[in-house]
Amino acid sequence: MGRNRLEAFSDGVLAIIITIMVLEMKVPHGSDLSALRPLIPVFLSYVLSFVYLGIYWNNHHHMLHATQSVSGPILWANLHLLFWLSLFPFATAWMGENHFAPAPTALYGVPLLMAAIAYWLLQRAIIAKQGRASLLAFAVGSDLKGKLSPTLYLVAIPLAFWHQWIAGAIYVFVALIWLVPDRRIERALQKKLGRDKA
Amino acid sequence: MGRNRLEAFSDGVLAIIITIMVLEMKVPHGSDLSALRPLIPVFLSYVLSFVYLGIYWNNHHHMLHATQSVSGPILWANLHLLFWLSLFPFATAWMGENHFAPAPTALYGVPLLMAAIAYWLLQRAIIAKQGRASLLAFAVGSDLKGKLSPTLYLVAIPLAFWHQWIAGAIYVFVALIWLVPDRRIERALQKKLGRDKA
Amino acid sequence: MGRNRLEAFSDGVLAIIITIMVLEMKVPHGSDLSALRPLIPVFLSYVLSFVYLGIYWNNHHHMLHATQSVSGPILWANLHLLFWLSLFPFATAWMGENHFAPAPTALYGVPLLMAAIAYWLLQRAIIAKQGRASLLAFAVGSDLKGKLSPTLYLVAIPLAFWHQWIAGAIYVFVALIWLVPDRRIERALQKKLGRDKA
Amino acid sequence: MGRNRLEAFSDGVLAIIITIMVLEMKVPHGSDLSALRPLIPVFLSYVLSFVYLGIYWNNHHHMLHATQSVSGPILWANLHLLFWLSLFPFATAWMGENHFAPAPTALYGVPLLMAAIAYWLLQRAIIAKQGRASLLAFAVGSDLKGKLSPTLYLVAIPLAFWHQWIAGAIYVFVALIWLVPDRRIERALQKKLGRDKA
Repeated sequence: MGRNRLEAFSDGVLAIIITIMVLEMKVPHGSDLSALRPLIPVFLSYVLSFVYLGIYWNNHHHMLHATQSVSGPILWANLHLLFWLSLFPFATAWMGENHFAPAPTALYGVPLLMAAIAYWLLQRAIIAKQGRASLLAFAVGSDLKGKLSPTLYLVAIPLAFWHQWIAGAIYVFVALIWLVPDRRIERALQKKLGRDKA
Repeated sequence: MGRNRLEAFSDGVLAIIITIMVLEMKVPHGSDLSALRPLIPVFLSYVLSFVYLGIYWNNHHHMLHATQSVSGPILWANLHLLFWLSLFPFATAWMGENHFAPAPTALYGVPLLMAAIAYWLLQRAIIAKQGRASLLAFAVGSDLKGKLSPTLYLVAIPLAFWHQWIAGAIYVFVALIWLVPDRRIERALQKKLGRDKA
Repeated sequence: MGRNRLEAFSDGVLAIIITIMVLEMKVPHGSDLSALRPLIPVFLSYVLSFVYLGIYWNNHHHMLHATQSVSGPILWANLHLLFWLSLFPFATAWMGENHFAPAPTALYGVPLLMAAIAYWLLQRAIIAKQGRASLLAFAVGSDLKGKLSPTLYLVAIPLAFWHQWIAGAIYVFVALIWLVPDRRIERALQKKLGRDKA
Repeated sequence: MGRNRLEAFSDGVLAIIITIMVLEMKVPHGSDLSALRPLIPVFLSYVLSFVYLGIYWNNHHHMLHATQSVSGPILWANLHLLFWLSLFPFATAWMGENHFAPAPTALYGVPLLMAAIAYWLLQRAIIAKQGRASLLAFAVGSDLKGKLSPTLYLVAIPLAFWHQWIAGAIYVFVALIWLVPDRRIERALQKKLGRDKA
């Protein structure tokens, strides 16, 4: 089974998730600029989730690029990841509409945490299929960022009940460390291509 | 006519169905965790339908993989399947919002049943086009699961009016027996590829 | 410019239109079967529009299959067609929710009529690009169905104000004459492929 | 990294944006034609935004066609463009529902302006990757339209508070000057292909 249809389906789901989030930004009834003020936290949550989904799409793209073939477990690990990503619009809207209240801010961390775990499981499934000597296994290496992120989410979720701004700052911080695209895989790919040509 | 555009269109529709279901999980007005409690049945219905749609996508993928060319009847059999799958969000939301009340739980079985029949019709249309000696006909064989599922739905639908939890348990059970990906087609494909190489 | 991205974009838009229509079938508040009764006209409208969009997707697929290259006018003629098709969910919902009242039933014919004209314009744009001796020009021929459909819509729209069931019957009739896939193009293609091989 | 998945994802997002806009055209409760009257400004806003998104899709298509490979900055510049385009449905609905009131008409210009800037940044990112001697750099040339559009939006936004119809006229005017497809890139491509063959 090729990886093309897996990519196409994931692209479709990600494109829809990233776009329907904007439907949660309800059009206000008033017609002056002040009617937009209550939407500011909704907009900020939207920006954060858009960046997160952009990061996932980007890294997902890189990871599948280093994947030669797709097995049943990879397929279901991928659907499992998409499931948690599909909850982003709900968590984003609840947090935004409640102006970063403690419980919604804590809950926002749950799909973030579960998606990070699901991404790690997908990575494992691909490496299991291709062998530990594979390109992806080599590229991922110690996977510092992949281990740091869920740890930070686990810290942020309870902290949200104590002071939600710290949790929010952690969510933004994790997004920033991932905004740098996953050069590890790109470099490993280029090295390998260099070796193959040589 | 190639099968690529059929796959792309089906992927698109399935990706949208699986994603808009989450829109039925309405953002609650309260901002504490107890506001999420009434959403638990909605969430559970969402998980079940997500798994069902994942199974359909997975098996659809395998079936088309064993299909060489697409005819008019295949095209319409495929649209017929997508029609019943498109009713999943409605049935899921009605069942979830009414906390598994009898009538919505019974109705949830109707698109499940019709989609199972539509899938079987699509399989017939593909085999009719390719001949009974085709790879797919060989792979499908006696098709035990494909015959068991609609039978179980037919049992579950009236049972829902008597005790809805039995119907729910049957829906979950059918999903579990399908979660095992359709190895029959995969094995037949691999055998054939082996023979072709030899 | 290739026709692949045009196909992919059209497939995406059509997949979304066909799927979001189901969002207009609002989940009822009651939890017994009688709560579904007011939804029956909405469901019937949905079925009719689903069939129409399936026909458009099917014929669009055939038409682009006979198209070698894409020009600016073809691109915009295609977007023009997608625009009118995008109004199907609105017209469908208005007609369904008002139980086939005269004005909504008349209005339902407007996107049908405009989409038929837009399809004809797209056909013209493709033939203009490829020359009157092209495969598509040959396949389309006198285009009886393509001329009959808008005429019938033009008759149905005013009739809806007098007796809406006649208009509804005409809409169903036109769908039925199109359900037969466009064999003309398929036959012309096969003849040509036959000649090319010979 | 190839440009195919970037195109597919962008196509998906654009197809969804262009289609969910129609969801903002709420089905009216009345069943006579007069119930449609308040929807006229919503419809006109929809047409304008549909044309704008069609222009972006068209030009995006041309630009990526002249792009050989995709880098991290190109990927993020593209996501940045999609972000601002994703706000079109919101801005369109607010302007339409308030019948072109001053503040919503001014705000409509903001995603237009930001998308124009994002498009320019994406163009820069592609040229930066391919070198100033690249085909795209040559094709874009002095980029008169690309510089005129944001200037006109910057003029229209404050004018909307003084007399909103002038702003609306500017938005329509910019759409009209872009409706002519970007022949520069097409011509440069054809010239180059001609040279390559010679």
